[in-house]
Amino acid sequence: MAEKSVVTLGVTLEALVEAKKYTTLRDILVTMNALDIASLFEDVPEEKLPLLFRLLPKELAAETFVEMEPDAQELLIRGFSDNELKEVVDELYVDDAVDIVEEMPANVVKRILKQADPEMRKMINEILKYPDDSAGSIMTTEYVSLRPHMTAEEAIKRIRRTGVDKETIYTCYVTESNRKLVGMISLRTLLLCEDDDVMSDVMETNVISVNTLEDQESVVQMLAKYDWSAMPVVDQENRLVGIVTIDDAIDVLQEETTEDFEKLAGMTPTDKPYLRTGVGETWKSRIPWLLVLMFSATVTSMVLTGFEESLAACSALIAFIPMLTGTGGNSGTQSSVAVIRALSLGEVEFSDILRVIWKEIRVGVLCGITLACCNFAKLILIDRMLLGNAGVTTPVATVICMTMVFTVLCAKSVGCLLPLLAEKIHLDPAVMASPFISTVVDVTTLLIYFQVARVILHI
Amino acid sequence: MAEKSVVTLGVTLEALVEAKKYTTLRDILVTMNALDIASLFEDVPEEKLPLLFRLLPKELAAETFVEMEPDAQELLIRGFSDNELKEVVDELYVDDAVDIVEEMPANVVKRILKQADPEMRKMINEILKYPDDSAGSIMTTEYVSLRPHMTAEEAIKRIRRTGVDKETIYTCYVTESNRKLVGMISLRTLLLCEDDDVMSDVMETNVISVNTLEDQESVVQMLAKYDWSAMPVVDQENRLVGIVTIDDAIDVLQEETTEDFEKLAGMTPTDKPYLRTGVGETWKSRIPWLLVLMFSATVTSMVLTGFEESLAACSALIAFIPMLTGTGGNSGTQSSVAVIRALSLGEVEFSDILRVIWKEIRVGVLCGITLACCNFAKLILIDRMLLGNAGVTTPVATVICMTMVFTVLCAKSVGCLLPLLAEKIHLDPAVMASPFISTVVDVTTLLIYFQVARVILHI
Repeated sequence: MAEKSVVTLGVTLEALVEAKKYTTLRDILVTMNALDIASLFEDVPEEKLPLLFRLLPKELAAETFVEMEPDAQELLIRGFSDNELKEVVDELYVDDAVDIVEEMPANVVKRILKQADPEMRKMINEILKYPDDSAGSIMTTEYVSLRPHMTAEEAIKRIRRTGVDKETIYTCYVTESNRKLVGMISLRTLLLCEDDDVMSDVMETNVISVNTLEDQESVVQMLAKYDWSAMPVVDQENRLVGIVTIDDAIDVLQEETTEDFEKLAGMTPTDKPYLRTGVGETWKSRIPWLLVLMFSATVTSMVLTGFEESLAACSALIAFIPMLTGTGGNSGTQSSVAVIRALSLGEVEFSDILRVIWKEIRVGVLCGITLACCNFAKLILIDRMLLGNAGVTTPVATVICMTMVFTVLCAKSVGCLLPLLAEKIHLDPAVMASPFISTVVDVTTLLIYFQVARVILHI
Repeated sequence: MAEKSVVTLGVTLEALVEAKKYTTLRDILVTMNALDIASLFEDVPEEKLPLLFRLLPKELAAETFVEMEPDAQELLIRGFSDNELKEVVDELYVDDAVDIVEEMPANVVKRILKQADPEMRKMINEILKYPDDSAGSIMTTEYVSLRPHMTAEEAIKRIRRTGVDKETIYTCYVTESNRKLVGMISLRTLLLCEDDDVMSDVMETNVISVNTLEDQESVVQMLAKYDWSAMPVVDQENRLVGIVTIDDAIDVLQEETTEDFEKLAGMTPTDKPYLRTGVGETWKSRIPWLLVLMFSATVTSMVLTGFEESLAACSALIAFIPMLTGTGGNSGTQSSVAVIRALSLGEVEFSDILRVIWKEIRVGVLCGITLACCNFAKLILIDRMLLGNAGVTTPVATVICMTMVFTVLCAKSVGCLLPLLAEKIHLDPAVMASPFISTVVDVTTLLIYFQVARVILHI
């Protein structure tokens, strides 16, 4: 619904720009959401952008600026006078300012920091210090802090006075004069208090906080788990330095999920949207794993070459190699993806390894037997009788189906073990497990196949 | 940090239960978070659970109850007196009550509804009407509604009076007497207003809402996109019936992501955690796609059988089949996962099909040529010279590498097309695309391989 109206408006806007109806344009834009304006501006020709942007009132301009793509932001900044830049920077929240600064070339960053007021500049520099993907790097320093001796009335007054510049006012943190975090209180609780209740009596003292260096993903998982709207971030001395808010957490969650998908499919994660990533960049993110996997298939080729004579003796076996390796690969992927996801949701950890294996073995036996039985029927009824493939004798079908059982069992075990082992040695389960499974499974499948064939068919 | 303390406490608790130190136990439990208590209770023997639960104060008991697994909830309810059940139900938010009701057997549901007060019962029944996975089914009806003529002072008074029962008080909705949604205002704006400002002047009138029947995933994506803490849900007549809050949205997001992973790996989605799903259930979720894919590999077998003679004439070709189909499969999966993720994040839609194909074709050519060149060098240097595989002549290597280029190109095109087409005909891209890609790619790879071999090797 919202999407559609944006598209229709886009057409009208272009006509209005052409006709120079700027007052009408402004009247339309002010009714819109910053995010929608930003996505509208994406389709506007570059040279019209500064003009359109200047139509927006100050606050909306800053909100829209935050939502734009880095290229457009850079273009606008380069066109801004110092005064205009200052106006936008003054309206930004510090975490948004940091996001922008991180994407800009050095000379633009210098201009931004020069226009920021000293306190803002200090906060930006502080956050920039923290390593990528740490809690410190995604936090904001604009939170409401209260003191233990304040009354509810004083607290609410303080929020009303200082709240306008804070990222959220809905969770307030109670700190002592040395900035030590001693409690938190929601605005909801505050509003439901009596005016003269004292913070130290009504605050929640069992505050869970994270360290500035904590991995951003675990911060987000904790926020999601506890259903909180913000998570306090403290330094090594347990002094409150910032908060991570839920809206930023969701963005991180979406990013990390995309990364997990990309890793599972053997791609190096990129943080740009699909259509904005150039061909060269996409190639660079995809080629490494393709090469690694292609070379690792050398082992598979060697196994096949080694059994060339057996294959020549019973050529019917060749036709079913892709089916066997394929089913093995699919079985292994199912287990590994289930375990990878369980690991990333915190449902499973390395110490559960025995329970996981025991489960996968039983599932593997069940799946293997089901597949083998169905396959036997298919081989005899379809391949032999319907398609008249004389090579598919009962012994050959037996070889194929016995291989199926062992392959599925092996694949399921390997599939659940690899991510757990990767986690144990602190490698990313998604990166390490998935691509290797196919190679490991291919090789074991072929070895099992030829071993079974040798025993049953005496080749 | 938090995790660790839970584990350690678990040990202590058991000792305390054994020693019947209930007062100490209670003192410890009241300092804890409901979610942590619930996960602690999971490891407690069944017969001790009701006893431990009764130690909790009323409100904490209800919060803990919400976080427990359905089995434990059922166990507790069956042990509750009518009075105890009423106490818990009275403390529940309506959306949590609905979640519980949905998991319980009919006779337990009847008891719950009987103990709920009439208004709660009406709200539960209303929400239960909506289809699974719709906005209506995940919304709560406990929101703050204000009237357009209210002043800020009146509004805040109303919130302080009624807020305790509301799921969130941070976003308030302004409705006319016929419940038509006309605006919204955040508690933050309200607090920063003058006391005599009137709602109709200060509220945000550009409210984006969703219909009760809207798919839950798109509701969540919108919440994430606009960084809101709640989304209003309206009926066909634009009357406000409920809100979806961000904490529920995150749960949906996590669930849907898990589902996408499961579908990509060819599993039927289950909504239970990995270790809580039984072996039979896991088998049932995994076997359908394994069977489908195994049977679809019949086509691959037929192609191979058809070319049995060519293979016999040049047996060196056999050894490289898994490498070629594997690389094709990996290339295709990369494209399909990238497109599936872009579709689910709303970065790409069907109308972008030409841009997507054009991009994948260029990436495919680049990847194909890179892989072919590296592979040619590898075949000659490693397979021929190092491993002494005499079958790998220059013409054979040429066949393999030319096949590589075409295969990667085809795989990339198929990989991006299948999810887009699935989306177009309203099938789930993740379900339809991924599993079929391997079969389609296997068959085309083999056809290309034998065609190229026939032309170059004259077999």
